[in-house]
Amino acid sequence: MFTDISLTNDRPLYLQIRDYIRQMILRGLLSQGQKLPSTRELSDTLEVSRNTIILAYEYLEDEGFVKTIRGKGTFVSAVSIDYKNVWDMDWNSRLTPYANMANRLDIVKHESKWQKGMISFKSIAPDDKLFDVEDFKRAFQNRFSLEGEKLLNYGYAQGYKPLIDYLLHYMENKGVSTQGKSILITNGFTEGFDIVLSALVNPGNYILCENPTHNTAIKIMKLHHQKIIGIDMEEDGINLAKLEKALANNPVSMAFLIPSYHNPTGVIMSPQKRIQVLDIFARYKVPVIEDGFNEELRYSGSHLSPLAALCGSGNSVIYIGSLSKVLFPGLRIGWILGDKELISKLESVKRSRNIHTSFLDQALLYEYLSRGNLEKYLKKARKTYREKYDLAIECAREYIPHKTVLGEGGLHIFIELADHVDARQVLTRSIRRNVIFMPGDIFYTDGKGSNTLRLGFARSTLNEIKKGFKIIGNVVKEMEE
Amino acid sequence: MFTDISLTNDRPLYLQIRDYIRQMILRGLLSQGQKLPSTRELSDTLEVSRNTIILAYEYLEDEGFVKTIRGKGTFVSAVSIDYKNVWDMDWNSRLTPYANMANRLDIVKHESKWQKGMISFKSIAPDDKLFDVEDFKRAFQNRFSLEGEKLLNYGYAQGYKPLIDYLLHYMENKGVSTQGKSILITNGFTEGFDIVLSALVNPGNYILCENPTHNTAIKIMKLHHQKIIGIDMEEDGINLAKLEKALANNPVSMAFLIPSYHNPTGVIMSPQKRIQVLDIFARYKVPVIEDGFNEELRYSGSHLSPLAALCGSGNSVIYIGSLSKVLFPGLRIGWILGDKELISKLESVKRSRNIHTSFLDQALLYEYLSRGNLEKYLKKARKTYREKYDLAIECAREYIPHKTVLGEGGLHIFIELADHVDARQVLTRSIRRNVIFMPGDIFYTDGKGSNTLRLGFARSTLNEIKKGFKIIGNVVKEMEE
Repeated sequence: MFTDISLTNDRPLYLQIRDYIRQMILRGLLSQGQKLPSTRELSDTLEVSRNTIILAYEYLEDEGFVKTIRGKGTFVSAVSIDYKNVWDMDWNSRLTPYANMANRLDIVKHESKWQKGMISFKSIAPDDKLFDVEDFKRAFQNRFSLEGEKLLNYGYAQGYKPLIDYLLHYMENKGVSTQGKSILITNGFTEGFDIVLSALVNPGNYILCENPTHNTAIKIMKLHHQKIIGIDMEEDGINLAKLEKALANNPVSMAFLIPSYHNPTGVIMSPQKRIQVLDIFARYKVPVIEDGFNEELRYSGSHLSPLAALCGSGNSVIYIGSLSKVLFPGLRIGWILGDKELISKLESVKRSRNIHTSFLDQALLYEYLSRGNLEKYLKKARKTYREKYDLAIECAREYIPHKTVLGEGGLHIFIELADHVDARQVLTRSIRRNVIFMPGDIFYTDGKGSNTLRLGFARSTLNEIKKGFKIIGNVVKEMEE
Repeated sequence: MFTDISLTNDRPLYLQIRDYIRQMILRGLLSQGQKLPSTRELSDTLEVSRNTIILAYEYLEDEGFVKTIRGKGTFVSAVSIDYKNVWDMDWNSRLTPYANMANRLDIVKHESKWQKGMISFKSIAPDDKLFDVEDFKRAFQNRFSLEGEKLLNYGYAQGYKPLIDYLLHYMENKGVSTQGKSILITNGFTEGFDIVLSALVNPGNYILCENPTHNTAIKIMKLHHQKIIGIDMEEDGINLAKLEKALANNPVSMAFLIPSYHNPTGVIMSPQKRIQVLDIFARYKVPVIEDGFNEELRYSGSHLSPLAALCGSGNSVIYIGSLSKVLFPGLRIGWILGDKELISKLESVKRSRNIHTSFLDQALLYEYLSRGNLEKYLKKARKTYREKYDLAIECAREYIPHKTVLGEGGLHIFIELADHVDARQVLTRSIRRNVIFMPGDIFYTDGKGSNTLRLGFARSTLNEIKKGFKIIGNVVKEMEE
């Protein structure tokens, strides 16, 4: 005993010794009533201070593994260990259709993976090297010295009040009327969208969206057993004639739109089209879920009001916001802005899902935002991303034989190749040359898009963009021959 | 213009000025082409530095609200504002049965609320004054200087690797065999349980649990349309004869048990009963979801192996852990330990819900735990809570006329009053005397428990426990007369 213990430097010694003895007891190698070595003996054997052993024994006693009898020594307690009931489930056969679908639609599991050395255009996550780590640290220090332990205890399902107020103001600054509206804080866009669908659509309902659209949104709509009606995109947003026709011919209960930096095409819906779209939906009395995706990353042009602003004091638009593609996605904070009564209902759904979003993170984000750090950061980020964007557009047009190159800013562009070119084959061949990207078909609601690809450039260097796009271009050229 | 602007100290001045001008533009009070005052003029008018105005104008330009023409001045851009499409939805009529049920079962909305000045035994949240704020700050500094911005970018659905490894080791220290097992990090127990049910039970399935049981678990089981079979509790855990009978007579697909510090009764399942329970479930091939609730708060007695340990290398127990009733519930971190293959499936469900749990929080918790802070904290917390617990038991027995007083540690006790005494009436009358608690009926699966109450004491002082229990006791006595 104690001959096979190997002490390391990465954890307190007394805990390592405690754990070793626990394991001996739990494996039945030390049995009830057996005497442990004295603290002096063990300190000699292990060549650690006697205090370390005393502390280890104290913890073992606190946790009910041993009992010390004064003047007699330390003895193993009656710890029940029993391995009789070993039986194995076949869990796979038990999985619900929901879990099976979540697995089948999990692109992280099924798409080609990035390998070391590859140039990757797969992700549209922001470049964390741009984050102001010092400002975030300061936010932690400030907020923590103000509220301390309170930030670590339970909070409220709706969210951290100062952050909610900040975001209401933030939305007002986008022209949104917040009269009669309220905000629910969620774990990012994904949870926001899932909660809204949970509360407002029933299986078999018709939901309308742009085609292509955000693949996570497609996944969630499918998990809610929605009949998805995808409407073709044009260079200034959704096709109005097709939208009108779809609404006339189907009992659509809800729409999902990404008017700003549409994912995956990068198209921005024009101001005129925004009004027209809202007019059409108002006529058919179909409410809209608006994804405010990357509104913060416009590089030029006039301010564009989100649909949630253009609907004025009406309550028919639910806006889901997130800074995750710009700032701190690891914190997983997003928000739903909508009718006050509705938000109160969604709050109960949120509470039944996970009680609330981390209060610490909400408080830190609030502190960071309220000090004007977002504006400062966006100034810097826009400059860097714009440079990459300009180069990406230029290289795409120059190197990659295409039908269209779409993308008016943001962190990605979208390419339609000639109709007969299979983007998945382009991907396979590009990967062999160490370049990876996202095939466009995963964004389509109807299995189309086999000749499309999305290229995210946020975390690539200018050189990588040039080099990587050339390689993709060469692959396409070879395939067209 | 600018006469109604009121500048405050809580936000950077340039942002306040920017916001004011944005609002003027968005409300149509400044229209396209209109010229803004020069920076010098406005700096005079508002009595702030000219640099502040320059910065405000710069941001307005970045965001597409104005355009500066050299030598001419700054002009309002073409910002589309339109409030034509105002229409209102009746959202209530659209709510899904799921959302309506989540609302109906939301006890935060429907139970009596704490008011200032009340002594509260309602909550079982930990006392945040016990948290080691300095240790947590140090954890932030250490982890952040090690990983910095990486902690703020996207992570992995399964969780933060070092935390997963720590928790695997932590579970091994409870005697759990982790061979063939894995861990998924969740936003607390609530999300863990919801994800497990989403993946493994279908509507109309039979699920078995203790009666009473954790009210949030009841809510989630109902939201999953489970037929709940509640088995009566005894002083050493679930009634075995009734358990056996229920399994023999119903096609039960899953069980949910809280063997340690059962919520709400505070009963600890005895070591013998744990083995017997597993034997019975093995016989009927029914898997068990084990809630490891408050295992960390034993004040005395030998170590008790969780069911997940007693089932040895078998995979039929899914263990859901959380430190939330002990440490940092505001972070919302819990974990599911189970069969490796199963955890990989649950990971996809987690990804479809909210991508992952905050990586910052996971990293901070890991850093805090790995330094031995949990053990240090538990030593202190156990001492404080034990004192409260001892007094609570003593006062309950002395002051409150009862049939049984249950609770073997933890942060709450459970009282059965005489059969004819209505605990909700006791509550109403106690509230009039400024004492609030949790009526026991919300924990019952079958509408029983009208004569029961749960008293949480974690955040009460010793004086409050004494005073509050006396008041409740007096109310009961008056009602019994």
